[in-house]
Amino acid sequence: MSSMKDIGEFGFIDRITKQLGTSPDVIVGPGDDCAVLRSGDSILLATMDASIEGVHFRREWSSPEEIGWKAAAAAISDIAAMGGVPKFVLSSVAAPPDLESDALEGMCRGMAEAAAHCGAVLVGGDVTRSPEPIVLDVTVIGEAREGRYLLRGGARSGDMLAVTGWPGRSAGGLDALERAFDAPALARAHLHPKPRVREGQWLCGRDDVRAMIDLSDGVIQDAGHLAERSELGVVMTSASVAVDPELLDICAKTDRSMQEYVFTGGEAYELAFAIDPNTVGETLAAFREEFGLPVHILGEFSDQYEGVLIDGAPPAYPGFEHFT
Amino acid sequence: MSSMKDIGEFGFIDRITKQLGTSPDVIVGPGDDCAVLRSGDSILLATMDASIEGVHFRREWSSPEEIGWKAAAAAISDIAAMGGVPKFVLSSVAAPPDLESDALEGMCRGMAEAAAHCGAVLVGGDVTRSPEPIVLDVTVIGEAREGRYLLRGGARSGDMLAVTGWPGRSAGGLDALERAFDAPALARAHLHPKPRVREGQWLCGRDDVRAMIDLSDGVIQDAGHLAERSELGVVMTSASVAVDPELLDICAKTDRSMQEYVFTGGEAYELAFAIDPNTVGETLAAFREEFGLPVHILGEFSDQYEGVLIDGAPPAYPGFEHFT
Repeated sequence: MSSMKDIGEFGFIDRITKQLGTSPDVIVGPGDDCAVLRSGDSILLATMDASIEGVHFRREWSSPEEIGWKAAAAAISDIAAMGGVPKFVLSSVAAPPDLESDALEGMCRGMAEAAAHCGAVLVGGDVTRSPEPIVLDVTVIGEAREGRYLLRGGARSGDMLAVTGWPGRSAGGLDALERAFDAPALARAHLHPKPRVREGQWLCGRDDVRAMIDLSDGVIQDAGHLAERSELGVVMTSASVAVDPELLDICAKTDRSMQEYVFTGGEAYELAFAIDPNTVGETLAAFREEFGLPVHILGEFSDQYEGVLIDGAPPAYPGFEHFT
Repeated sequence: MSSMKDIGEFGFIDRITKQLGTSPDVIVGPGDDCAVLRSGDSILLATMDASIEGVHFRREWSSPEEIGWKAAAAAISDIAAMGGVPKFVLSSVAAPPDLESDALEGMCRGMAEAAAHCGAVLVGGDVTRSPEPIVLDVTVIGEAREGRYLLRGGARSGDMLAVTGWPGRSAGGLDALERAFDAPALARAHLHPKPRVREGQWLCGRDDVRAMIDLSDGVIQDAGHLAERSELGVVMTSASVAVDPELLDICAKTDRSMQEYVFTGGEAYELAFAIDPNTVGETLAAFREEFGLPVHILGEFSDQYEGVLIDGAPPAYPGFEHFT
């Protein structure tokens, strides 16, 4: 009898997905960032994301508002990953009966604020008594503009892998919080992530962007999902990781490299995408101009390889797998 | 500092709802069975419902399939309560790493089966590691047919309160399971509830049905919600509770009355509705004919009273409140 620890989150999702029924209104079922669904003349995107005390957040170093914000931002990021428009947020909150109601109210306020920041609105959910731990489950319903959305599959051999923003900062922030280092910008990246909603919509509007995902489990795992769904490999070089000045200090203190933070750092909620090599320079320049945000090429998709290679070899960092 | 135990689930929802933003696409926000949302030419219904090990289910007496079925059925029942068409189900599953993957697979299969039974399809979700307990959070997205849906508010003074099916059986089943009495029909009502989806749609199509809710917390609480939202009171008589032959045996064994099971029994997932007294006889007869299912009048809404009265007095049964 195998346990969840043995088969892992992704192994489990693969197994269960094969058994599910379908319907003509389901355009994309389980296995991508969102389900893609038809309702009347709308193309809906729907996703759920759980935040669990002790796994995804700790009350020692997060305010209730930050816990709520991060929970909602993580779910909204799945809509961003498809280039969609987040519209409606629902949340199911399970909490012990002795939790102060002010704390729970702060979490709800944080969720509502993250929704509002992204143009969405908190419209409902559920509140239930639970033993420990606190669980915030967030559902986001979005829309695909003009029926356009980006999937994980669709990269072509030769496409570049590009990543927005600062993919290592959230993990750096977590290290700083755990070890009580003073690094406010990193802590904020971890506790108050901003889903790349407008950036995702912009990228989705370009014909040269072919596949996209948000970084929740680190570049290695998430770029690996893009590659696998596109039936390609992805080859990265550690030299292509840009120096993030905010990370230098924490690297020295934790003895972890910039590369380790960028390649394996979870909960970054940046976007990773596959882009046509012929227009990549022009598109990334236009992106930087539009958003004042960095975007870096980290590698290349290839039909000559399987899986993820860094500097020609399988990654030495294990990344992050929920169950194992 | 007040705790969740002090202010309760409904007090908390009232408090947080007042602070939330809105949007022109939100037709009905928090506080009803579902949020009612506009997307293109569709009117969407969206709801979330949590099932927590030790609170909503126990693995000692439920198979994984039953746990999944009940979790999904409870959420789908909120769509039924508005007369909607359940379309898409998402589920977030939090489970300890040492849980057998077969058990989790059974729960997912149970959810998919409940969805299929109601014409919907399981389209995605999330799987995460958690310490104890197992949490299944289910989201259902439905559609309002021709833009029609029933809210909790809308009852008029003089309207009858009617309830479908067998509202006491699930609670009777729980007692039977807890005390290891042999009562398979009751146990099945508890472990394998059937959301009244077709019945809800049929009732929603009648002009004389004015408000509706599903029975998740017992008739007293749920009819109380109908009354409160309609700015009325509701007056019930214990003599109007029909004898349910399946409950007789358990009543004798547990020393609880038929009335107690019907008025306070949770997780029944029957429908309670307000109906015009002028046509109630004809409509209920047509309902019985259509579905081969009982439907009983239990009381009357009135602007002469506030809250819930049974035999002229406030109910002596406490009902079921999640936090208190």
